[in-house]
Amino acid sequence: MADEALFQFLHNEVIQYVNTTESGETENGRCVSKLENMGFRVGQGLIERFTKDTARFKDELDVMKFICKDFWTCVFKKQIDNLRTNHQGIYVLQDNKFRLLTQLSAGKQYLENAPKYLAFTCGLVRGALSNLGVKSIVTAEVSVMPACKFQVMIQKM
Amino acid sequence: MADEALFQFLHNEVIQYVNTTESGETENGRCVSKLENMGFRVGQGLIERFTKDTARFKDELDVMKFICKDFWTCVFKKQIDNLRTNHQGIYVLQDNKFRLLTQLSAGKQYLENAPKYLAFTCGLVRGALSNLGVKSIVTAEVSVMPACKFQVMIQKM
Repeated sequence: MADEALFQFLHNEVIQYVNTTESGETENGRCVSKLENMGFRVGQGLIERFTKDTARFKDELDVMKFICKDFWTCVFKKQIDNLRTNHQGIYVLQDNKFRLLTQLSAGKQYLENAPKYLAFTCGLVRGALSNLGVKSIVTAEVSVMPACKFQVMIQKM
Repeated sequence: MADEALFQFLHNEVIQYVNTTESGETENGRCVSKLENMGFRVGQGLIERFTKDTARFKDELDVMKFICKDFWTCVFKKQIDNLRTNHQGIYVLQDNKFRLLTQLSAGKQYLENAPKYLAFTCGLVRGALSNLGVKSIVTAEVSVMPACKFQVMIQKM
């Protein structure tokens, strides 16, 4: 419990700090992209440590399943609730109770803040995939808090 | 293992980010104080969650012991190795293998970077103590990496 809390509290602090630091017209966009970059590097580091003793992955789907189960559980203490794919390089990962959103009130008035709370995790997934040899673009959307969907678009090399 | 890694990696990112963001003459000092402030708020949040079901503390020393054992174990996966006090409001907490320094090389050339890696934790302790009703000033020093000492000076109110 306390571990999670440590990560959550620090994550919140980072959002606040980045938010007050990145000022200017494109404020929101820059803030999100800074957070995404941090997530990317953390994801790279984590997956490296995490797959040290893992067998080689069969294919892309196998990698995605690993992210949804093992990686998600390690970071967010639960698995992704639903994984869908069009079998053409798009994957949708749905988390019905996303840990970093549960602290925000469910009211609609906070929906506009959601991107900041998802950016780090988008980067985390992109960084993890990148270190497993899968180049991707990761975006996120929230319809009803605290559920959210991460969309992974694989970039063919 | 992975939990710790998550915190460590994020902590590193925060240091890097704060470091590149806070520029100017007093760069280093501002950087350290930003990190300390983040730690303070995280410490407040953590201790609140962590002492929810704890019995009341007997006295100041009792509080310090809790920080050295339970709180330290929760955050750093080990206890403080040595706690000393002059019984006049000064406590020295020694950690012989401080988790956030073990990643830095032990060479002397990195000693000057150490304050940045300790600032968050100084704040963490100050925030935790503050929420337990103990106002303090917390500083840290490293003699030989990765050992370090945190000095807590209680501020009588």
